[in-house]
Amino acid sequence: MEKVRTIEIHESVTALNDQTAEFVREKMFEQGTLFINVMSSPGSGKTTLLTSLINKMKDKVNIAEMDVDIESSVDAQRVADKTGVRALQIHNGGLCHIDADMTARALMEFDTKGVDLLILENIGNLVCPAEFDTGAHMNVMLLSVPEGDDKPLKYPLMFSVCDIVLITKIDTVGFFNFDFKAAEERIKKLNPNAIIIPVSAKTGEGLEKVEDLLLEKMAEIKK
Amino acid sequence: MEKVRTIEIHESVTALNDQTAEFVREKMFEQGTLFINVMSSPGSGKTTLLTSLINKMKDKVNIAEMDVDIESSVDAQRVADKTGVRALQIHNGGLCHIDADMTARALMEFDTKGVDLLILENIGNLVCPAEFDTGAHMNVMLLSVPEGDDKPLKYPLMFSVCDIVLITKIDTVGFFNFDFKAAEERIKKLNPNAIIIPVSAKTGEGLEKVEDLLLEKMAEIKK
Repeated sequence: MEKVRTIEIHESVTALNDQTAEFVREKMFEQGTLFINVMSSPGSGKTTLLTSLINKMKDKVNIAEMDVDIESSVDAQRVADKTGVRALQIHNGGLCHIDADMTARALMEFDTKGVDLLILENIGNLVCPAEFDTGAHMNVMLLSVPEGDDKPLKYPLMFSVCDIVLITKIDTVGFFNFDFKAAEERIKKLNPNAIIIPVSAKTGEGLEKVEDLLLEKMAEIKK
Repeated sequence: MEKVRTIEIHESVTALNDQTAEFVREKMFEQGTLFINVMSSPGSGKTTLLTSLINKMKDKVNIAEMDVDIESSVDAQRVADKTGVRALQIHNGGLCHIDADMTARALMEFDTKGVDLLILENIGNLVCPAEFDTGAHMNVMLLSVPEGDDKPLKYPLMFSVCDIVLITKIDTVGFFNFDFKAAEERIKKLNPNAIIIPVSAKTGEGLEKVEDLLLEKMAEIKK
């Protein structure tokens, strides 16, 4: 009984959310900003990877970052300190996701005019964020080597809604059993169009590919 | 607007949930079963650790395991194959948690009479499972070294509701910056009574302590 009630409410929120998401997406498109939503488990290395990527790209394009957490502002602070780009910390009041309405409200306070690449670092969670369209043009998710290659079997929706899957912390592969081929097959089965890129923020491996892909998408938005 | 609506509904579900949780807890107490709820991020090593722990304890006490996932039965299968104890896979229909009503329904189908230790492996998520009392006597959470020592700052509720925090994968500490002292301070600030035990399923370090603690709690239940 309870379970059914939860699901029904959730669907009605999602329907309203999709309209707001479309509005946000269109607005970002009009002003020439590529808006990406970055999702993963807690501790898969979102902030570290984004910091490396921003530092690699910030002299070529104008970047801004929004960071969602329940509490604490360590992530936005870390990005701002280590990259110098503008970062906004969003506290979401204990929810397990961010939706398009919350994104829209954040964008009312965070000026993104002239920004080429707007990055939303979503809350660490492989379930709920996958259910809410944030209004981003692309969903990027991180799967870290220490988490294991079986995650697509257990969190199928997350892998289904992602355009890009970054397999992170590949420098630690000697320490963990991670079968890249099995992971790739499981992801492709759920999402044949997913672009999978193995990366390491520590060694820099794979970051060039991610940069090229984002630059290409930014050029498309500005056409 | 949307955000407020979500929170209000959620509180009403939680209130009902607490009654069912109390009922489950009392029932398990009466039949002399210690019921523990194990929570963590995806990939922090719940199944691997529980498999090692069950193998260490199964000749001394009668153990059964229930495993929650959105899809896939790999975890319950893995526990059953590697330990020989009875395991039940619960598919929760895409929700981000398991609540007491779902637990109660699972317990109607899964016979736990004569079981000394009932383990619920919750869904991998540091947000939602913390909000729902499952009816367990104790909450155990895992924080893995690769996830980082800052997780208590970001997921405070999870660390607040746990009786035991196991810091897992400590054999990989050479690969990651993980400050045990900082992690402990952050956990204790949220939850002064939390028992923190560093463990490795690979080397077996710390498992003896976890076993002793559970045996002690089992003896209390049976008094």
